[in-house]
Amino acid sequence: MRKLRLQELNRLSTEDFRLSAKLPFVAVLDNIRSMHNVGSFFRTADAFRCEKLLLCGITAQPPHRDITKTALGADRSVAWDYFTDTGNAVRALKQDGYYVIGVEQTTQSQPLQQFVMPNQPIAVIFGNEIDGIQSEVLELCNACIEIPQAGTKHSLNVSVAAGIVLWHFCAPHLSSLP
Amino acid sequence: MRKLRLQELNRLSTEDFRLSAKLPFVAVLDNIRSMHNVGSFFRTADAFRCEKLLLCGITAQPPHRDITKTALGADRSVAWDYFTDTGNAVRALKQDGYYVIGVEQTTQSQPLQQFVMPNQPIAVIFGNEIDGIQSEVLELCNACIEIPQAGTKHSLNVSVAAGIVLWHFCAPHLSSLP
Repeated sequence: MRKLRLQELNRLSTEDFRLSAKLPFVAVLDNIRSMHNVGSFFRTADAFRCEKLLLCGITAQPPHRDITKTALGADRSVAWDYFTDTGNAVRALKQDGYYVIGVEQTTQSQPLQQFVMPNQPIAVIFGNEIDGIQSEVLELCNACIEIPQAGTKHSLNVSVAAGIVLWHFCAPHLSSLP
Repeated sequence: MRKLRLQELNRLSTEDFRLSAKLPFVAVLDNIRSMHNVGSFFRTADAFRCEKLLLCGITAQPPHRDITKTALGADRSVAWDYFTDTGNAVRALKQDGYYVIGVEQTTQSQPLQQFVMPNQPIAVIFGNEIDGIQSEVLELCNACIEIPQAGTKHSLNVSVAAGIVLWHFCAPHLSSLP
């Protein structure tokens, strides 16, 4: 068994990625503080062919050296928009027919693996590293999910949580991409 | 719907975590360069109640400020050992009855979601951020898995990959923990 070379992985060029069919998943970054985390969202959204990232509030926007460093250039392939106010981003998504899911441990959140996906485009909100999703944004969500945890810490790193959630939602559909 | 307070999450204390039943999953870090990534492994292994981390080669060991910063203290809950040579760590795991899985895109790797878990303790190897798993370590693996990807980049961030793989393996068993 040997490692595959980059050419053998059949990855898309940045230009082909932009033109390619995407999975109907949008990630909303509600005041993500760390550029490292923002870069990681780009890299993960690239891998799972997500439609778009919505960068909101204090979330940094490309081009920025520290985002590119972690994104490894995926900040040029994945589409993104910026909203000053996360609530406005979510209201616009809902008007466009998206089902909006907050990733947060709440009184009504469902475990990720038990969540039954509705048959419409999905937007998933990830909150600030310390404060999570803003309460007024949570109120706009159609549902909340949480990643079950059995350790000592409050939560996972937000980049890791995004990887798990986007993997869980996108993996069943990756093979159907043209 | 409101966010849960830390007390409502029923997290374990560090002392209780150490004494608690663990899931039979060991993560092997083969020359992980970034302390941020090492810290993230601790935080993820804590959340999914993994048995142990094996830090190998150039992988930094706690206590270190930069590991603790990302681990948020999970470097005190999760058990770990250090091996100078990753091959020696893997040979010791196999002697102890572990089935050893490399996370790497190889000529024989299986997609994560198709991998059928054997009924024995599992060790999962994650490789260096640039070079992946060393070839001589790959040769010792019982199997390789890969996370299917449909973007422009070679791979996911290793912390994100670890989150996805450990989630995929551990999630079905978390509810059975005493």
